[in-house]
Amino acid sequence: MSDPRILTVRPKEGEYAWTFGGAAPVARIEPGTFLNVYTEDCFAGRVRSEKDLVSEVCEFPFLNPQTGPFHVVGAEPGDTVAVHFVSIEPARDWAASTTVPLFGALTSTHATASLQAPLPEVVWMWQLDRDRRTCLFSARDSDIQVELPMDPMHGTVGVAPANLEVRSALVPDAHGGNMDTPEMRTGVTCYLGVNVEGALLSLGDGHARQGEGETCGVAVECAMNTVVLVELLKGVSTPWPRIESDTHLMSTGSARPLEDAFRISQLDLVQWLARDYGLSELDAYQLVSQAGEAPLANVCDTNYTCVAKIRKEWLPSGDPHRGLHRHLRETAALLSTP
Amino acid sequence: MSDPRILTVRPKEGEYAWTFGGAAPVARIEPGTFLNVYTEDCFAGRVRSEKDLVSEVCEFPFLNPQTGPFHVVGAEPGDTVAVHFVSIEPARDWAASTTVPLFGALTSTHATASLQAPLPEVVWMWQLDRDRRTCLFSARDSDIQVELPMDPMHGTVGVAPANLEVRSALVPDAHGGNMDTPEMRTGVTCYLGVNVEGALLSLGDGHARQGEGETCGVAVECAMNTVVLVELLKGVSTPWPRIESDTHLMSTGSARPLEDAFRISQLDLVQWLARDYGLSELDAYQLVSQAGEAPLANVCDTNYTCVAKIRKEWLPSGDPHRGLHRHLRETAALLSTP
Amino acid sequence: MSDPRILTVRPKEGEYAWTFGGAAPVARIEPGTFLNVYTEDCFAGRVRSEKDLVSEVCEFPFLNPQTGPFHVVGAEPGDTVAVHFVSIEPARDWAASTTVPLFGALTSTHATASLQAPLPEVVWMWQLDRDRRTCLFSARDSDIQVELPMDPMHGTVGVAPANLEVRSALVPDAHGGNMDTPEMRTGVTCYLGVNVEGALLSLGDGHARQGEGETCGVAVECAMNTVVLVELLKGVSTPWPRIESDTHLMSTGSARPLEDAFRISQLDLVQWLARDYGLSELDAYQLVSQAGEAPLANVCDTNYTCVAKIRKEWLPSGDPHRGLHRHLRETAALLSTP
Amino acid sequence: MSDPRILTVRPKEGEYAWTFGGAAPVARIEPGTFLNVYTEDCFAGRVRSEKDLVSEVCEFPFLNPQTGPFHVVGAEPGDTVAVHFVSIEPARDWAASTTVPLFGALTSTHATASLQAPLPEVVWMWQLDRDRRTCLFSARDSDIQVELPMDPMHGTVGVAPANLEVRSALVPDAHGGNMDTPEMRTGVTCYLGVNVEGALLSLGDGHARQGEGETCGVAVECAMNTVVLVELLKGVSTPWPRIESDTHLMSTGSARPLEDAFRISQLDLVQWLARDYGLSELDAYQLVSQAGEAPLANVCDTNYTCVAKIRKEWLPSGDPHRGLHRHLRETAALLSTP
Repeated sequence: MSDPRILTVRPKEGEYAWTFGGAAPVARIEPGTFLNVYTEDCFAGRVRSEKDLVSEVCEFPFLNPQTGPFHVVGAEPGDTVAVHFVSIEPARDWAASTTVPLFGALTSTHATASLQAPLPEVVWMWQLDRDRRTCLFSARDSDIQVELPMDPMHGTVGVAPANLEVRSALVPDAHGGNMDTPEMRTGVTCYLGVNVEGALLSLGDGHARQGEGETCGVAVECAMNTVVLVELLKGVSTPWPRIESDTHLMSTGSARPLEDAFRISQLDLVQWLARDYGLSELDAYQLVSQAGEAPLANVCDTNYTCVAKIRKEWLPSGDPHRGLHRHLRETAALLSTP
Repeated sequence: MSDPRILTVRPKEGEYAWTFGGAAPVARIEPGTFLNVYTEDCFAGRVRSEKDLVSEVCEFPFLNPQTGPFHVVGAEPGDTVAVHFVSIEPARDWAASTTVPLFGALTSTHATASLQAPLPEVVWMWQLDRDRRTCLFSARDSDIQVELPMDPMHGTVGVAPANLEVRSALVPDAHGGNMDTPEMRTGVTCYLGVNVEGALLSLGDGHARQGEGETCGVAVECAMNTVVLVELLKGVSTPWPRIESDTHLMSTGSARPLEDAFRISQLDLVQWLARDYGLSELDAYQLVSQAGEAPLANVCDTNYTCVAKIRKEWLPSGDPHRGLHRHLRETAALLSTP
Repeated sequence: MSDPRILTVRPKEGEYAWTFGGAAPVARIEPGTFLNVYTEDCFAGRVRSEKDLVSEVCEFPFLNPQTGPFHVVGAEPGDTVAVHFVSIEPARDWAASTTVPLFGALTSTHATASLQAPLPEVVWMWQLDRDRRTCLFSARDSDIQVELPMDPMHGTVGVAPANLEVRSALVPDAHGGNMDTPEMRTGVTCYLGVNVEGALLSLGDGHARQGEGETCGVAVECAMNTVVLVELLKGVSTPWPRIESDTHLMSTGSARPLEDAFRISQLDLVQWLARDYGLSELDAYQLVSQAGEAPLANVCDTNYTCVAKIRKEWLPSGDPHRGLHRHLRETAALLSTP
Repeated sequence: MSDPRILTVRPKEGEYAWTFGGAAPVARIEPGTFLNVYTEDCFAGRVRSEKDLVSEVCEFPFLNPQTGPFHVVGAEPGDTVAVHFVSIEPARDWAASTTVPLFGALTSTHATASLQAPLPEVVWMWQLDRDRRTCLFSARDSDIQVELPMDPMHGTVGVAPANLEVRSALVPDAHGGNMDTPEMRTGVTCYLGVNVEGALLSLGDGHARQGEGETCGVAVECAMNTVVLVELLKGVSTPWPRIESDTHLMSTGSARPLEDAFRISQLDLVQWLARDYGLSELDAYQLVSQAGEAPLANVCDTNYTCVAKIRKEWLPSGDPHRGLHRHLRETAALLSTP
C-alpha cells in the first residue's frame, strides 16, 4: 500500500507499548489515516508449543504488547476517536491458548483469593486454516479434535486514560484497553472518548476467535495483520467505549462486580438512544429492556466487561455519531485491501 | 385436545401457586403427559392500562402466579424432569411492562440500598399482533412507536427446592424458578433436577418478548396458552437447570454477584461436556472458553441468572441426557397442536 | 427455675427445627416470658473428635438445628419481637471447628465455582475452661496451643420469613437466621420484624467464640444453655434485624455481594437514627460516616452479613424502640440466673 | 527540628503529587529518616465553608494531593518500606466533610450506575478542639450538635505501583494509596512492598476522624502536620499493605466486590502468620477464623478496602518483620516531637 493516507507499522522487539498512557507516540497521524499494523500476540510471541508455559517463558509485566500509541492530530479531551476495523488477518497458521496459574473465571485468583492450589498449567496449540477460515482445537487429554469457524478480533484497543493515569495493557476501563469482546471484529467502528491531547491510540491482543466471557482467561491468541481507518469526531464525548456495526449499536462497561459492568453498559446505551434517537430516558430504558442483547465480553480481567447491544432496525430514525460508521464503511470499501 | 395423554389446566383465581415448594399439587401426571396450561401474567393480570401502577393494584406477595404444581409420578431426588416447550402462545392481544419502585438494574433497590428517591412508576402497554407475530412499543414521552418481533417465552419454570425450603416464585435458583431467560422459548427442553418426591413442577410468567438482562426488571408480560411435554429421566441428576434446543446446549447459574452466576453456569457446562462428550474437564474448559456464548438472562431478580451456551455442531459426538430432547421433539411433532 | 414466667425447653432428637418458617411451634409464649433453652451445635452434635468429618458424619440438610419455633402470643406482621440475651453458657467442656469442602471464604464454593480441588477436611477440637472462661486452640500441624477468651454467642436467631417462604437455618436474611455475628452475645437485645402471626421465633448455633467474618465458615461450635427474655413491640416495624447493647445500636444487613450487605446495614442505621433521634437522613448519613463502626459478621454463608454500629453516647438524646432494651436489662437482672 | 535525620517538607501550591507513580521525587531520603510533613486535605483546601460545593470549587483530577514522593535510597523491588507514624496533628481548627454527587456508599455511582438523580450536595463544617481532642458535628437540618473524640489518621499512604502503572491518588490497591482505614493512626507502622527503585513514597488525605466504611465517601477532612519515621527492610516482600500496632497485626486488601477485599486481607494475614509464627496455613486459617477482627476501611473508593486484624497477645511467639515495629517505636520515642 503506497497510498499516502496509509501508514504501515510493523514494530520490532522493544518497540511495543505495555500500557495505555505513559508511552511516547510512535507516529502522528491525521484523521482519515489508514493504519496497516502488525500486532504481536498477548504472550509477546513466546508461547509457540505445548511446552511453553506462561509462567516460564513470559516475563511480567511484559504481556499484551500494543502496537502504538498513535497521536491523532487535533484530538483533544471531549472529542471522540473512531477506529474502523477494515480487516483483521492472522499473521501465522497457528495460535495458542493456555491456562495461567490463578487467572481465569473457574479458578481462584489473586483477587478472589483462596488457599487452594492453582489449576495445572496447560497449553493448547490451535491450527489455523486461513483459506478455509477455520481454527482446529486438539484436546490434550484425548484424541478429540473440533474445527471451529475463524472469527478474528482484537481483544485490546484503547487510548490514554483520564485522571493522569497509566494503565497496564491487561486492564479494560473507560479508556478501552483489554475489553476482550468478540464484537471487536472486521467491519465495526469503535468509538473512544479522548482524554489527553492526541488521544494516544494503540491496539493489540488479536484472537483468531474467542468465546463470550473468555472463561479460562485466554483466547485463541494470534499475531495479526490488521488495517484500521482512524477518524476524529470533534466535540462529541463518549464516556465509555462504544461499537457500531452495520446492524447493531453496542455500549461497553468494564468494572467489578460484573453487575456494575452490566449497569454501566446498559445506562450508556440508554443515554445514547436518548441523545441520538429522540427517546426520553425512561422510554429508552423500556425499549432496551425488551429489545437488547447482553453478551458478556470477559469475566477474567482486572475489570470484567459487558456489552449492551441493540439492532439498529429496531430503533426509531436517528443518526448516531453523525453517520460516521456508514461513511467509514464506504471509505474503507474504496481501499484495495492488501 | 381429548388425547388421554393431554391434561388441560386453566386455573381460576385462588388456584395459582406463589411459591416453589410448599404448595399442594393440583394434579398427578405420568411421565409422557402433555400439559396444556393457561398461565397468568406476573401481575396476576392486574396491570391492564397505563393507570394501573404495580404499587397500587398489586398485592404483595401475590406476584408471579404459577400454574401447578404438578406431581410427576415416579420422580425422586436424584432424577431429572424434562419439560419440552411445544408451544407458547399469548392469550391476549396486549401485554404490559412497567418500572417498579426500587426494582430493576438501573436503580437502587432494597439490596443495593441508597438514600436516593426511586424512579417514577411508569406503565407501557404493548399491543400484540398474533397473526403478524409482532409486539408494538409505544413510547410514553413522545409519539415514537417501534414494532418488534414476538418471541414468546416463560420467565419462570421450576420444581420444589432442596433443603426443605420454600421459595417465592420471584426467585431463581438451583431449582429453576424465575430465571427470566429468553432462551426458554418454544422448541427447547428444560432439564430440572428433582429434589422432592413428585418433583412438584410449575410454570408461569409468560413474556411476549424480553431483552437479555431484563434491565428494567419487567419484560413484555403476558398471559399465555402453553403446551409442554413432561418426561422423567430416572437416575440422572441435574445440579442446575439446563436447556437443550435443536442447535445448542445451555447451562444456567443463578446467584449474586453476577460473576458467581457466570461461574456456576460455565462450570456446569464444562462438567456436562466432560460427562456426556468424553472430554477431560480441562479440555472442556478450553473448548467452552473459545466456542461458548454467554447471554445474560436477568440482572434484576433476587438472584441474577446467566446462561452458558454452546452449539451442538461444534461438539464431538455425544448423546446428552440419553437423546431425550430429540425424542421429545419427535413426540411433540406427532401432536396436533391446538 | 420454677418461675411461671420461665419456660424451659430441652429438645430431644427429632424435636429440632431445620428451617425458619415451615415448622410447627413447640410452644406458645406470652410476651415477657423467659426461655431457658438448650441449643445443639451446628453439626447436630455429630462432630465429637478430630476423626468426625462433616462430610461423613453429618446428613444434609440436617445441619444447624434450631430450638423452637416459639409462637409469641399477639405478634402480627408489622410488629417487632425483642429477644434479650440474659445468659449464654457452653453446655460442654469442648467445642469443634472444621473446614467443610467447598464452604468458607478462602476456598471456591458451590456459588463461587471453580475447577480446583477442595481444601483438605480438617477438624479442630477446642477445650473450653468454663471457670477461667477460656477456649484452647490446639494446632493440628504443630504443637502450638493458644488460649483465647471465651465469648459465647448465638450464630442463629430469627423468625419465620415474609413472602410465604421457608428458609434453611443456614441462611441469614431480613428474618434474621444464620447471621453469625459475634455481637449476638449476653446482654444484648435483638429486634426482629414479625412476618407471620406468632412470629415463630427460634434460635441455635452457639459459638464459644467467633472471629469477625467467620473466615473458614465455621466458628468454635458448641451446645449452649441459654436464657432469653422475649418481648413484643406492637406497631413498630423492623425491616432488618437490629441489636442494642448497653453501649451501642447496631443494624444488620445480609446479602451478596458483601457491599450490598454493607449498604443495607448502613441505610438501616441511618434511617433508625432519623426515626428515633430527630436527625434528617442526610445528617444521620454524615454522623454515621464519621462515628460508625462496621465489623463484618460472616463472609461465608448463603448471604453475607455486615453490622453497622454506633455508640449511644455519641448520639443526640433519643429513646430507641421505646426504651425497651433498658427495661429488659432491668427485668433480667431481677431473675436469679441458673 | 534541626536533627540531621529529620527532613521537613511543606509543599507550596503546585508542588503536590496527584498520583502514585509518574511523579518526580521531591527528595531522596536515607532509611532512618524522620519526615516532618504538611499534608493538604483531599479537597486541596478548597472546601472552607458550607457554600463551597466540591462540584464547584474543586477541579478534577486535582483531588487528594499527596506530599511526596520520596525516593528511599536503596529500596528495590522485593524490599519493604516501613512507615512509622510518630504523630498526626490537625493543622487547622476546622475540617470539612460533604456529599459528592454520584460518590459514596448510599448512592448510585459512575460504576453502580442508575437513572436516579444524585443526592443533594451538602457540606458539613466540623470544629476541631485540638486541646480537648474533639471534633464537633453540627447538623445542617436541625440544631443538633454532637462532640466526638478526635482520632487523626491518614487516608492515603503508598508507593509507586507495579506493572508500569500510574494510579490516581484516589485509588487504593496493592501499592497502598487511598485505603481510608482509621487504623492508620499515630503509633502504627505501615509496611509497603517496593515496586520500583526508590519506592517513591508519598502520603496525604488526613482525617480528624473517620467511621469504618467511610459511608458517605468523605471523612472529617483536614490538613495535617505529620511526622513519620521511614525504614527499609531489604529482602522482605510485602504483597499487600500491612499495619502493625503495639497490640495488633493487620493486613489490608483492596478490590471489588467487597468480598474480594476481604479474601485478600484474610489470606494475607493467614500467610503472614504462617511465615512468621510457625503455623501451617490451615492452622493459621483456623486461628484467624476464631480470633480475627474484620473492620471495614472504605466501601466507597475505586476499590473497597478491608482490614484483617489479630491481637498479638493471642499469637504464638514470633518476630514479625524482624521486630521492626518495636525498634521504630523506640527510636521515635527518642525524638523530641514538635
